Amino acid sequence: MPITRGRLITLEGGEGAGKSTLLSGLRELLRAHGIDPLMTREPGGTPVGEAVRAVVLDASRSELCPEAELLLMFASRAQLVREVIAPALAAGRWVLCDRFTDASYAYQGGGRGQPVDRIAELENWAVAGVVPDITLLLDLPVSTGRARAAGRGEADRIEVEADAFFERIRDAYRARAAAEPGRFRLIDASATPDAVLAQAGAALAPLFGGVTS
Amino acid sequence: MPITRGRLITLEGGEGAGKSTLLSGLRELLRAHGIDPLMTREPGGTPVGEAVRAVVLDASRSELCPEAELLLMFASRAQLVREVIAPALAAGRWVLCDRFTDASYAYQGGGRGQPVDRIAELENWAVAGVVPDITLLLDLPVSTGRARAAGRGEADRIEVEADAFFERIRDAYRARAAAEPGRFRLIDASATPDAVLAQAGAALAPLFGGVTS
Ligand SMILES: Nc1ncnc2c1ncn2[C@@H]1O[C@H](COP(=O)(O)OP(=O)(O)O)[C@@H](O)[C@H]1O
Ligand SMILES: Nc1ncnc2c1ncn2[C@@H]1O[C@H](COP(=O)(O)OP(=O)(O)O)[C@@H](O)[C@H]1O
Ligand SMILES: [Mg+2]
Ligand SMILES: [Mg+2]
Repeated sequence: MPITRGRLITLEGGEGAGKSTLLSGLRELLRAHGIDPLMTREPGGTPVGEAVRAVVLDASRSELCPEAELLLMFASRAQLVREVIAPALAAGRWVLCDRFTDASYAYQGGGRGQPVDRIAELENWAVAGVVPDITLLLDLPVSTGRARAAGRGEADRIEVEADAFFERIRDAYRARAAAEPGRFRLIDASATPDAVLAQAGAALAPLFGGVTS
Repeated sequence: MPITRGRLITLEGGEGAGKSTLLSGLRELLRAHGIDPLMTREPGGTPVGEAVRAVVLDASRSELCPEAELLLMFASRAQLVREVIAPALAAGRWVLCDRFTDASYAYQGGGRGQPVDRIAELENWAVAGVVPDITLLLDLPVSTGRARAAGRGEADRIEVEADAFFERIRDAYRARAAAEPGRFRLIDASATPDAVLAQAGAALAPLFGGVTS
């Protein structure tokens, strides 16, 4: 029996906010503290989830309705929680996850207009009570994030949306952060990668009870 | 504007009950009445739904959790309703569907033990109020259906389950039929294909207001 439960740290933010970039930096930071984190992502992170991801992000599926999109996101998440995250936490492992439930509130809720109650009801049973210990919200102007993401190649089904869609997502994320200040840490993602990592390290410092290097 | 809404007829029943066989017979019967029905199926019936079907039925995905299975079934259904069924009905077309929402109550509910309330909540918003006009429940002993289905080749992820699983499904289907006698027609699916078609034709006769040929 593990004596301590691991920690779940999730990264959230719009396109090009720098989540993937920060994840690699955080992995090194945690390793420097003797912690080898499990890295995963959403949608995806399991064979089932990656198959779902391929459907959801396929740029040619413009007909995908918002209800199916929401259900697919939670299908991937339900599987990820049971197959990967919950067992890792139970074994005392730290988990770094690139997006989690908050992304559904922001994208399927704020972005696509799915009702918050509907998302909360799904969270209730599909996520089996798994709530992040800390959520780092990488916040930056939509135009800055989109300009960064544009350098990455082909846009997926979500990246092709208009600016107004991403403004709603940013607003929804910020509203969630304001409503749950105990869990969220707002990161100024318009800073340099090093400065973003420093902010994230400071936010996580209380978790490993030491100063970040 | 169409003056009459089309009709939605769904076929339900366990493995090897003869749904696919009856569907072809019904198509001919409807055509003989001057009705050219749209044929579709679940999970599937749309490009998104067929991609989901591939995930759900993949025999190698034994790790798929019941919650994700339920969410995937409703994702396929939400898309099928909006992309295919609702527009067809609105255009006055008849639709014959191989399985629909009742299958989730039977398979994910009765079979996998997902709570009925959870399924009803999903039906509430994901299916957008689409309820079949008539549901033909092809009922037969589990062993008879399994023996028939065994002749069809490789078993999928659901077909490999034990008899007890399929007994629960049969019970759940029969309970739904008993609870909604106005919509369900119980068909003795252990009869010959011709006799099954005759029963189905008699059940549908009121819909086209004539005697079935
Ligand atoms: N702080 C930063 N400042 C400038 N560019 C950045 C920063 N962080 C990431 N980038 C670059 O922006 C692009 C998107 O970053 P990425 O980490 O993939 O974002 P996300 O995963 O949030 O979509 C990449 O090309 C990355 O190198
Ligand atoms: N009434 C029947 N009597 C005997 N065999 C049947 C009957 N209906 C179908 N079959 C055969 O049983 C097998 C399963 O039928 P199928 O229509 O594919 O069932 P389902 O679609 O419900 O799984 C097929 O080989 C089919 O030819
Ligand atoms: Mg990324
Ligand atoms: Mg069939």
